[in-house]
Amino acid sequence: MRDLFHDELDQIGNSLVAMTHLAGTAMQRATEALLTGDLHVAERVVSDDTAIDALRADLESKTFQLLSLQQPVATDLRMLVTTLHLVADLERMGDLALHVAKVARMRHPDIAVPVELRDVIAQMGAVALSLVDKVAEVIKGRDVELAQAIEVEDDSMDALHRKLFTQLLADSWSHGTEAAIDMTLLGRYYERYADHAVGVARRIVFIATGAMPAGSAAIKPSGPAAG
Amino acid sequence: MRDLFHDELDQIGNSLVAMTHLAGTAMQRATEALLTGDLHVAERVVSDDTAIDALRADLESKTFQLLSLQQPVATDLRMLVTTLHLVADLERMGDLALHVAKVARMRHPDIAVPVELRDVIAQMGAVALSLVDKVAEVIKGRDVELAQAIEVEDDSMDALHRKLFTQLLADSWSHGTEAAIDMTLLGRYYERYADHAVGVARRIVFIATGAMPAGSAAIKPSGPAAG
Repeated sequence: MRDLFHDELDQIGNSLVAMTHLAGTAMQRATEALLTGDLHVAERVVSDDTAIDALRADLESKTFQLLSLQQPVATDLRMLVTTLHLVADLERMGDLALHVAKVARMRHPDIAVPVELRDVIAQMGAVALSLVDKVAEVIKGRDVELAQAIEVEDDSMDALHRKLFTQLLADSWSHGTEAAIDMTLLGRYYERYADHAVGVARRIVFIATGAMPAGSAAIKPSGPAAG
Repeated sequence: MRDLFHDELDQIGNSLVAMTHLAGTAMQRATEALLTGDLHVAERVVSDDTAIDALRADLESKTFQLLSLQQPVATDLRMLVTTLHLVADLERMGDLALHVAKVARMRHPDIAVPVELRDVIAQMGAVALSLVDKVAEVIKGRDVELAQAIEVEDDSMDALHRKLFTQLLADSWSHGTEAAIDMTLLGRYYERYADHAVGVARRIVFIATGAMPAGSAAIKPSGPAAG
């Protein structure tokens, strides 16, 4: 009976990794749609989001069943409780990718991002993807050191976010209020995506060490308007 | 032993109500600071946020202990699992109030909100407060009908959010890009605050009925750029 339980815990771990990859693919495609104006790719992100939502519902349900039937303690209990937090973060990352894709779709056939901001958005997309790949590795291996590297990488997302605002606020900005609103929201979506990746990493540290890193009950507030 | 356990569950319920009131007071004060430019009030929201964070950490810890020591099933288990979700939503509502307060602080001694937008922001603040008062009542009474009224009230927040964007995008907008960025982020903070209130209400429906409302695994994406 205990072996079956641990098989089920392993399956939950595999599903978490799968969910992480789905959230990563969603943001990769959303960024592509945003920078190329490809409506088909944007639509695909929108329709694929239901798979991420379904995986969350399924994992919450499985977790609840295991808590109820197996009454786990110690590390097993901690892993199940953490799973509830992780699926919330991962589903939200999928939602943020969806928001990015919807901006691409809304501006189609135009490209939402003005030419001079495409480089910074491409970099934000690349950092998001690098973060999510590391998150998948952390979930697989519960690698505390890699979890800490994720926090450092989040700093580079914050730096890109500041760079975006600097460009928006430059005297040379000539794209009007609508584009400024789009870029403000897009910057926020990428930054929040990275924040949730950090949240996942911190929770894994909690599984591995039994202690949350200092100050991490909150996903840290960041970004120019929050600073 | 079981009586002591149920006393502890009651205490958790009381703490959730207290946390809800703290998140409400934070947004009330943040809105006041935003509309009056009162630096003292803004600073108070910032410093008081640590109490909300501490309450989350405390409630998570207590929940984990009860899961571990009491091995609850059925409704008791559902209440504890739900508590983990509720404290995440409530803490995030506190963070969003904090973000609003920080915009007020950043623009001090100016008032961040242009005169013609103060009315819509005041209304968003009022809806936020009304929502959070209802959420506290729902937590106290597990009132499924009131939980559904919260969803309707969230629609009025979305309508105010759209009104805000309409004013930002009017030809008459004369406050430049920086104010447009501030107002875009502020609108998003209020809207997300309401979304989390809805998330809390939906979780209470889950405790009361054992079933999540359709489509509510995700806090619904909304807002002009997400639409």
